Amino acid sequence: MSFHVRPEISGLTPYSPGLSIDEIRERFGLASVIKLASNENPLGTPPLAQEAVRRHAGDAFRYPQSGNPRLVRAIARHHHVDERRVVVGNGSDEIIDLLIRMLAQPGRNNIVCFDPCFSIYPIQSRICGVEVRRVPVEADFSLNLGKLAALADENTVLAFVTSPDNPSGYVTPAQELRALAAALPAGALLAVDEAYMDFTEDEQAASLLAAGDDLPNVLFLRTFSKSFGLAGIRLGYGILPAALADYYWRARLPFSVNVLAEEAGLAALADTDFRAETLRVVREGRAALTEGFRGLGCTVHPSGANFIMLEPPAGKAAADIFEGLLRRGIIIRPLKSYGLPHMLRVSIGTPEENAMLLRACAELMA
Amino acid sequence: MSFHVRPEISGLTPYSPGLSIDEIRERFGLASVIKLASNENPLGTPPLAQEAVRRHAGDAFRYPQSGNPRLVRAIARHHHVDERRVVVGNGSDEIIDLLIRMLAQPGRNNIVCFDPCFSIYPIQSRICGVEVRRVPVEADFSLNLGKLAALADENTVLAFVTSPDNPSGYVTPAQELRALAAALPAGALLAVDEAYMDFTEDEQAASLLAAGDDLPNVLFLRTFSKSFGLAGIRLGYGILPAALADYYWRARLPFSVNVLAEEAGLAALADTDFRAETLRVVREGRAALTEGFRGLGCTVHPSGANFIMLEPPAGKAAADIFEGLLRRGIIIRPLKSYGLPHMLRVSIGTPEENAMLLRACAELMA
Repeated sequence: MSFHVRPEISGLTPYSPGLSIDEIRERFGLASVIKLASNENPLGTPPLAQEAVRRHAGDAFRYPQSGNPRLVRAIARHHHVDERRVVVGNGSDEIIDLLIRMLAQPGRNNIVCFDPCFSIYPIQSRICGVEVRRVPVEADFSLNLGKLAALADENTVLAFVTSPDNPSGYVTPAQELRALAAALPAGALLAVDEAYMDFTEDEQAASLLAAGDDLPNVLFLRTFSKSFGLAGIRLGYGILPAALADYYWRARLPFSVNVLAEEAGLAALADTDFRAETLRVVREGRAALTEGFRGLGCTVHPSGANFIMLEPPAGKAAADIFEGLLRRGIIIRPLKSYGLPHMLRVSIGTPEENAMLLRACAELMA
Repeated sequence: MSFHVRPEISGLTPYSPGLSIDEIRERFGLASVIKLASNENPLGTPPLAQEAVRRHAGDAFRYPQSGNPRLVRAIARHHHVDERRVVVGNGSDEIIDLLIRMLAQPGRNNIVCFDPCFSIYPIQSRICGVEVRRVPVEADFSLNLGKLAALADENTVLAFVTSPDNPSGYVTPAQELRALAAALPAGALLAVDEAYMDFTEDEQAASLLAAGDDLPNVLFLRTFSKSFGLAGIRLGYGILPAALADYYWRARLPFSVNVLAEEAGLAALADTDFRAETLRVVREGRAALTEGFRGLGCTVHPSGANFIMLEPPAGKAAADIFEGLLRRGIIIRPLKSYGLPHMLRVSIGTPEENAMLLRACAELMA
C-alpha cells in the first residue's frame, strides 16, 4: 500500500443513511414508494424556495459571497439575535464537525453526549481523534442531564444535547438545560441541537433560543432540512457566542454554502405560509400516528419532533415490520444503527401517507 | 471567556476571496460591473445545468443519495477510469481537507507544497495541526519538482502540485510529474490538482490523468467550478487510488454534495457544446489578453489556465491598477495574499470583457 490512513479513519464504517426511494423502487419493482425514513418535510420544498432556485439557476457559475452575509442577517432577524452570533454551514453536520475541530485538542480534550444520539457527534469526534464520553439515555428515553454533567471534567469542550431528541422525540425541559449549563466545568460549552425544536407543541417553553437565553457557554444548532423543507440543498446554522462565531468564519472553508442554498434559505425564511402549514400537518399527523400505533398495540414514545419512535406489539419483530413495509413500498427507519434493533422510527407524513402506513401496519401487526 | 479555541484556529486570518460584484457596485455606485477575479466561467452556467436545476427545484426537500452513485459513474465515464477511484465533494476544498485529515497524523506527519500555491493546502494543514513544508517557486514561476521531492521525508503524506498552477498559469511537464511520483518516499502521495487542466493547449500531453496514468501513489483533483461553469453550486471531484477512495467515503460527511449540485453536475457533463465553446473562448481570450497586455508593456507569464498573471510596466503599481479598474467597474485579483503585491491575476472573460479590460488598462498604464 502506498499510503497509510490514520487509525481513526481506517476503523470507520460507512454512515448508515435511510434508504432512498429509487433504491426501493428498483429492488421491489414498485411503481410508487412512500418515504417516511429521513424526517424530511411532508409537504416538500417551499414554493418560494423553488421559485428562488429557478430564478437563480443562471447564477450557479459564480462563487458565493464569502461569509453569506444576507443569509446571516435574515437568520438573525428570524431568531431576534445579534447577527454576529449566527453561522451557517453545509448542513449542521459541517458546523458540528468544525466546532469539534476548533475546540478539541486531540489526545487531550473530550466531548460528552448520550447513547444513542445523532451519530455525527461521536463519529466526527473520533475522526478528529477526540475522546467521546457517553452516558446511556434512561429506560424511558428521557435524558438525565445530571449524568451528562458528571461525565464532564476540565478537559471537556462540548456537551451535546439534542432536544427534541433523535430517535426518541424526547423534549428536555428548558430548566434542566439551564441547570446543565450552570453545572458544566469552565471551558465546556453546551451545544443544544434544536434541529426539530419548532415541531414541539410549545417552542417558547422548550427552547432556550426561543426564550431569548444568551448564556455565555451555550450554543444552538438549527437546520433548514426539516420545517424549512430544504434537506437536499444542505443548509444548517448555529447561534453561537459571538467570539466563537468569529473564529468559525476564519476556520470554515470559504465557500461551503452554495449559492442556490443561500437563495433557497432566504426564500424559505420568507415563506411563512408554507412553514405554518408544515408545523400544523406535522403536529396533527404526530397525534394521529401516535394514537393509531397505540391502537395497534405498539409502545409509542412521546415526541416533540417530526417523527415518532415505536416498539411493535409483543411477538412482532421490528425487522419484520420494516421489511414488510418495504415490500409494500413504504420506507421507514429501522434503529439497529442506533443500537435499538427492537424499535422503529417513523417520520410524520401527509395525512394520506400516515393513513397508508397505519393500514399497512395493521396488516403486518395483526 | 467560556471556551478556548485550539491555537491552530486562533491564529487564522479569514480567507481572502475575490471581491463580489455586489460589493463593488455598492461601493462605487456603479450600474454594471465586470468580474474577472475568481476564474469563473466567462460563458456563465451551462444551459443544460440551468435546466436541470429548474427541473429539480422541487426535489430540494429530500436528502441526497449517500455516495452520489450516479454522479460518480458519470465522472468515471468522462475520464475513462474505474468508478471505484472517483470521489466527489462540496468543492475540491472538502476533498483537500479530508485527504489531509485522513492521511496526516498531527504532530508527526507533514505535507509539502510550493510557495505561493492554492491557499487551501497550507491553511487546512495548519487547521489540522499538520506541519507544512514549502519551497518557493522559481523566479520565472516554474515549479522545481526536485526541490519539492527534497523536502519530503518518511513522514510526508501528501505533496501538492497544481498544474496549471495558480496564480501563474504555469504548466508542469508530465514527465516531471512522473519523475516526482517515482522520487517520493514510501507513504507519500502526489496530489496533482488539475482544476485548470482542461484549458491547456494540449491536455492529453500535460495531464497524467488524461494520459491514462494509474500510478499507485498519485491522485488527481478536478472541479466543476471552471470549465463546467458551476463554481457557486460547489462540486469538486477526485480520482484516487481505489483503496483511498473507499476510506474517503467512510470519512466524508454523508450528505456533503447537495441534490442540485448532483443534478447540475450530471447535466454539465452532458453539455458538451457549452464546454467546447468555453474552452475555445478561454484559449482565444488568453492569447488575445496575453498579446494585449504585452503590448501595454506588461510582463505576462505563459498560462495554461483560464487566467493570466501579469506585472504592470515599470512605474505603474499593481495596487493602483487594481484600484483604478475597480473604479471603472472591473474587478481583477490583486495577489498580495499570495505574497506577490507587484502582480495581478486576470481571469479570461468574454471577448467584449477582455476588450474593455484592455481599454481601461491602456488608460491606467499610459
